[in-house]
Amino acid sequence: MDAISRLFNPRSVAVVGASADAGKTAGRPVSYLLKHGYRGRILPVNPKVGHIGELACYADVAALPEVPDVGIVLLGAERAHLAVRDLAARGTAAAIVLASGYTETGGEGARRQAQLLEAAGGMRILGPNTIGLVNLTDRIVLSATGALEMEDFEVGPVGVVSQSGGILGALLSRANARGIGLSKLVSTSNEVDLDLADFVDHLADDDATRVIALYVETIRNPETFRAAALKAARAGKPVVAFKIGRSEAGARAAVSHTGAMAGADRMYDAFFRQVGVIRARTFDELLDIPSALATGRRLAGRRVAILTSTGGAGTLVSDELGMAGFYAPAPDGPTAEALRALQTGDHAVLDRNPIDVTLAGLKPDLMKGAIRVLQASPSYDALVVIAGSSSLAMPELVAGVIQDCLPDSPKPVIAYVSPHAPDVVRALTRHGVPAFAAAEGCAAAFRGMLEAGARDDGPGGAGRTPGAIDGLPSGSLDEHEAKRLFARFGVPCVREAVVAGPAEAGQAARELGGRVVLKMLSAAITHKSDVGGVAVDLAPEAVEACLESMAREVESRAGVRPERYLVQEMVGPGVELILGMRRDALGSAILLGMGGIAAELYNDTSLRMLSPGRGLARQEAAAMVRELKSWPLLDGYRGRPRADVEGLVDAIVAFSEMAAQLGDRLVEAEINPVFVLPRGQGVRAADGVAVLA
Amino acid sequence: MDAISRLFNPRSVAVVGASADAGKTAGRPVSYLLKHGYRGRILPVNPKVGHIGELACYADVAALPEVPDVGIVLLGAERAHLAVRDLAARGTAAAIVLASGYTETGGEGARRQAQLLEAAGGMRILGPNTIGLVNLTDRIVLSATGALEMEDFEVGPVGVVSQSGGILGALLSRANARGIGLSKLVSTSNEVDLDLADFVDHLADDDATRVIALYVETIRNPETFRAAALKAARAGKPVVAFKIGRSEAGARAAVSHTGAMAGADRMYDAFFRQVGVIRARTFDELLDIPSALATGRRLAGRRVAILTSTGGAGTLVSDELGMAGFYAPAPDGPTAEALRALQTGDHAVLDRNPIDVTLAGLKPDLMKGAIRVLQASPSYDALVVIAGSSSLAMPELVAGVIQDCLPDSPKPVIAYVSPHAPDVVRALTRHGVPAFAAAEGCAAAFRGMLEAGARDDGPGGAGRTPGAIDGLPSGSLDEHEAKRLFARFGVPCVREAVVAGPAEAGQAARELGGRVVLKMLSAAITHKSDVGGVAVDLAPEAVEACLESMAREVESRAGVRPERYLVQEMVGPGVELILGMRRDALGSAILLGMGGIAAELYNDTSLRMLSPGRGLARQEAAAMVRELKSWPLLDGYRGRPRADVEGLVDAIVAFSEMAAQLGDRLVEAEINPVFVLPRGQGVRAADGVAVLA
Repeated sequence: MDAISRLFNPRSVAVVGASADAGKTAGRPVSYLLKHGYRGRILPVNPKVGHIGELACYADVAALPEVPDVGIVLLGAERAHLAVRDLAARGTAAAIVLASGYTETGGEGARRQAQLLEAAGGMRILGPNTIGLVNLTDRIVLSATGALEMEDFEVGPVGVVSQSGGILGALLSRANARGIGLSKLVSTSNEVDLDLADFVDHLADDDATRVIALYVETIRNPETFRAAALKAARAGKPVVAFKIGRSEAGARAAVSHTGAMAGADRMYDAFFRQVGVIRARTFDELLDIPSALATGRRLAGRRVAILTSTGGAGTLVSDELGMAGFYAPAPDGPTAEALRALQTGDHAVLDRNPIDVTLAGLKPDLMKGAIRVLQASPSYDALVVIAGSSSLAMPELVAGVIQDCLPDSPKPVIAYVSPHAPDVVRALTRHGVPAFAAAEGCAAAFRGMLEAGARDDGPGGAGRTPGAIDGLPSGSLDEHEAKRLFARFGVPCVREAVVAGPAEAGQAARELGGRVVLKMLSAAITHKSDVGGVAVDLAPEAVEACLESMAREVESRAGVRPERYLVQEMVGPGVELILGMRRDALGSAILLGMGGIAAELYNDTSLRMLSPGRGLARQEAAAMVRELKSWPLLDGYRGRPRADVEGLVDAIVAFSEMAAQLGDRLVEAEINPVFVLPRGQGVRAADGVAVLA
Repeated sequence: MDAISRLFNPRSVAVVGASADAGKTAGRPVSYLLKHGYRGRILPVNPKVGHIGELACYADVAALPEVPDVGIVLLGAERAHLAVRDLAARGTAAAIVLASGYTETGGEGARRQAQLLEAAGGMRILGPNTIGLVNLTDRIVLSATGALEMEDFEVGPVGVVSQSGGILGALLSRANARGIGLSKLVSTSNEVDLDLADFVDHLADDDATRVIALYVETIRNPETFRAAALKAARAGKPVVAFKIGRSEAGARAAVSHTGAMAGADRMYDAFFRQVGVIRARTFDELLDIPSALATGRRLAGRRVAILTSTGGAGTLVSDELGMAGFYAPAPDGPTAEALRALQTGDHAVLDRNPIDVTLAGLKPDLMKGAIRVLQASPSYDALVVIAGSSSLAMPELVAGVIQDCLPDSPKPVIAYVSPHAPDVVRALTRHGVPAFAAAEGCAAAFRGMLEAGARDDGPGGAGRTPGAIDGLPSGSLDEHEAKRLFARFGVPCVREAVVAGPAEAGQAARELGGRVVLKMLSAAITHKSDVGGVAVDLAPEAVEACLESMAREVESRAGVRPERYLVQEMVGPGVELILGMRRDALGSAILLGMGGIAAELYNDTSLRMLSPGRGLARQEAAAMVRELKSWPLLDGYRGRPRADVEGLVDAIVAFSEMAAQLGDRLVEAEINPVFVLPRGQGVRAADGVAVLA
């Protein structure tokens, strides 16, 4: 049995620093273990106390009569490592360290945290700064959270891992109030050892867990997290994550635009999606979505029937579902006919959706009839039942009515509770009908059930055998070197020549044929046009004079006279995009954006993370292109020629393979612009930057 | 005393169709009047019943021993008009009609509704299809909502008007559960007579009401609503509205783009803002924001201190506030020093924000000290206090601690309650500290307190004396006629000439001087370029040949040979915008949008409603320009010349004056594009459409 299994199911627990006063934080773990009926052995350790209730208390860890499976360490940060050392010496599987005062407080705390890890040796540590864990399946509580004052808790299939201790208590009490059953809860907090990924991996194997909910502050090890998330997906257990840090602008300055455009939160967004994690957009959704997924039901489409006995709330839910991309189509003819046959009341509105059965809301048999008709209707993928004020008096009855209909169909059935009626919410949810007090919760539930039913991005590219990547330059490349690098990996670039003076430039222009572009060439100055270093659409015969005036202009504005220039073929017209690479703690990402002002002013970009060593699959690259708000421009918008999307996808894949194969050596890379020409004519990288380590 | 005052404070109430069975809907009004201690006279009317409890029951309205101030009509839609007729005949001030089966059910219902209005004569009607009203201030309940089963309700300064009856009960029970005190509630529903605006107008005068909350389905009379909302604003009573119908795409087809771009919901958004109504973005916010405004406190800035004893929840709130545009700056030096002087605990983090006082959360005096330091700090405009699991055991204590500090400072203080703790939420809110179970609620509360403190759009334009608007053409104008119309109201247009053939065109081009644009001229074909009817950047000498080839091209593509053409001066480069007018049931609006693809693909538009007969004020027009996502393009983006924003504002005002003065005669108008030239060079309308009635 591994250490995490021991943590959740210890045969014995040492509580080091236990207080006899159950009102104090240090008194809670023993008190809660007893209160919630722990059946293993509790071994309090405290040299100043003889007994805690009926339990003998030991002077130190060495004095314990047996090797505890788990130790809970309640000492302060100054002494916790001593207890950890002693527990490790006895052969304890894992220790839970509750003290704060570690990395979260700064430098001295970081030193203490390192000391803690060293003291643990081969023993696993949960924490420090954790509130502990709760195994609801087996009623084992190794935690000091005040939320455990509750007498009983709702047991069910949702496993929760939180990087915040305080939030763990909030989730436990909120889930309980809503009738959402949990299996295991754990707070990993500072993660000196065991982290989020370790517990996702464990819960993927846990029979009692069918859905995993995560409260995330940061993912310290993206690769083990990716592996754990994919394992959970293979096990058919959806993972739902709420991540804070959404408003941190991720304001890393970078030379290229890419750095400024792809905020850290977008990286997480792409990462979660690519490893199959459903993102909760609000804290409430972190319970809303698992509550829905816990039923095991999945949504196959977006057509929803709304059954109500109170018009206003039905419209409210319909409006919110509409905002979230769901439809509430009117009943088809036979469905409307079947509803009418129920004779629900004089003014019932049965040929629209919301389907308003007015007084039938008070008559169980009529409600059951209507639910069954809608479950059987080919017009709907799911059903929302609205509970109005009339349900206040009989929560179990309302829940029972809907529950009775559940076995008839695999379609999701959820409920919206219009008045303040926590008992109705709890009863419905416990009876297998996830219930929500907010219309936004209904929309989140359906989104979760839809995403859990369908994943579209496939795995990454095939991971070509790394080609010869010897002989690469290093440092900040100039434009010409950058494009040579891109071309080496298969990205088509404009034809161009490096020249030193007017005569060479004229000669190069004539050899290229057609109209050309003239640019100064410098690795130091990246915004060439700001200093007058770019001239476009030149006839070959105008190039010499242009170069001379450019030299004077750049010298006057930048203080240096360019020594070299680029003469390039003029391409286009076409759609101009930006293609770049971005890297942060989470990994490397490929970013595609509309060129010109749109990427910046309209945030018209799409992003995918790279798996280590793998470029993007063609379908991922194609999805990035279609995600752009300006996709219609590439797709024949208003009579324009369709762009060479196939060529663009090839270029994105090639660029991503470059990033994957170069790995950490590639510090920065961006093509801006890449011209996407009309279909059949390909794409051309016209300018770019790259920095190699 | 007017009819609405009588409705809220009747000396006597006839209940027509009252049932002796309190379990039935028809039994509820009498039962609730008694239950909640109504002190006026209750006069049940029912020919089949002698008494209801101790109350004598009358056979019909004619038999009543006195003229009732108000009648509640509980009969079905087939007979309700008869009771209304009888009540009117007796001289009753107002009747409340609960029956459904009117306009909401279609044609036959609409006929019944007209019949009802006719029967009322001079008597006012609330409803039909209403659940009634509740005067909490005076404990008078004229309603059948099941929510009144509650024993008592929280009385306070929030007046609620709902167009849905079912929602009224939801708001009543939800407000009560949260400790949010209400003054009056009324459901207007079908609004055959009394509507939303009537009650806003009344509540603006109601001493017990300080904040007005509206649940809106549609505004039937925008002008009386505008007047009522402005009256409430003058009385210092903020109006908060939640409106459904956000997802209805308002998919009116129109010839111009403007029709497609300005959905009905955006019209409401502009309308609410312009009449000073704060929009609730979710149903929850319809209580969140009034809860905050009920304190009378207003927010003067965006800097928020977050005081917490549980790290995770503090970060959660900070993140959400950041998303909503608020800042959580670290304490300044003296503030941090004052916090440290409180000695809140070993690992308290006092030099960051959230300010984490760890164990001080359990010590009332330390909490008070910290709150007072933050209230006094010049670094903060407001304070959020986080209640963690430790507050569960002592809701009143936590509330009392904060309440004690309120008199020290006018800064808003709100609370976030992290665990499930409805008692804590209620106690805090009742003690003057609006409390929220969702971080989004905290953000909404601050947004509301900020918007209530500052309104920026001024009133509309001066309303010029209508000029001579005689002699206008009518029908669908061609491009040239449209621009002559725009020019007549002061919008600068490109110089141009109408020609019939090649020779005239060449002559016109030479007279204009410089390069020109040639277009076919037709009122029937609005997308000229789609049929090859536009050529730009022509030298004058190329115009004749171009016209001949254009004639052939258009004939082959559109099947008609153009008879007339426009020769225009070529303007630009400049920023190309769209300026248009849109009208729907709510009124007329001016829409400004980025030209080209941006208005459509990126929805880069801004919109303002017009008050009848008034154009936009300069400051409104200027705000529209700055609201565009592409505003930087006009403001010297990346070294571009600054555009003539003053000239653009003049043109928007002139265009809006045209719309205001032409009123209903102007069916449709759009300039696309209008070129905004570099500063000092003005703007030019280069193309446009107009339809006059």
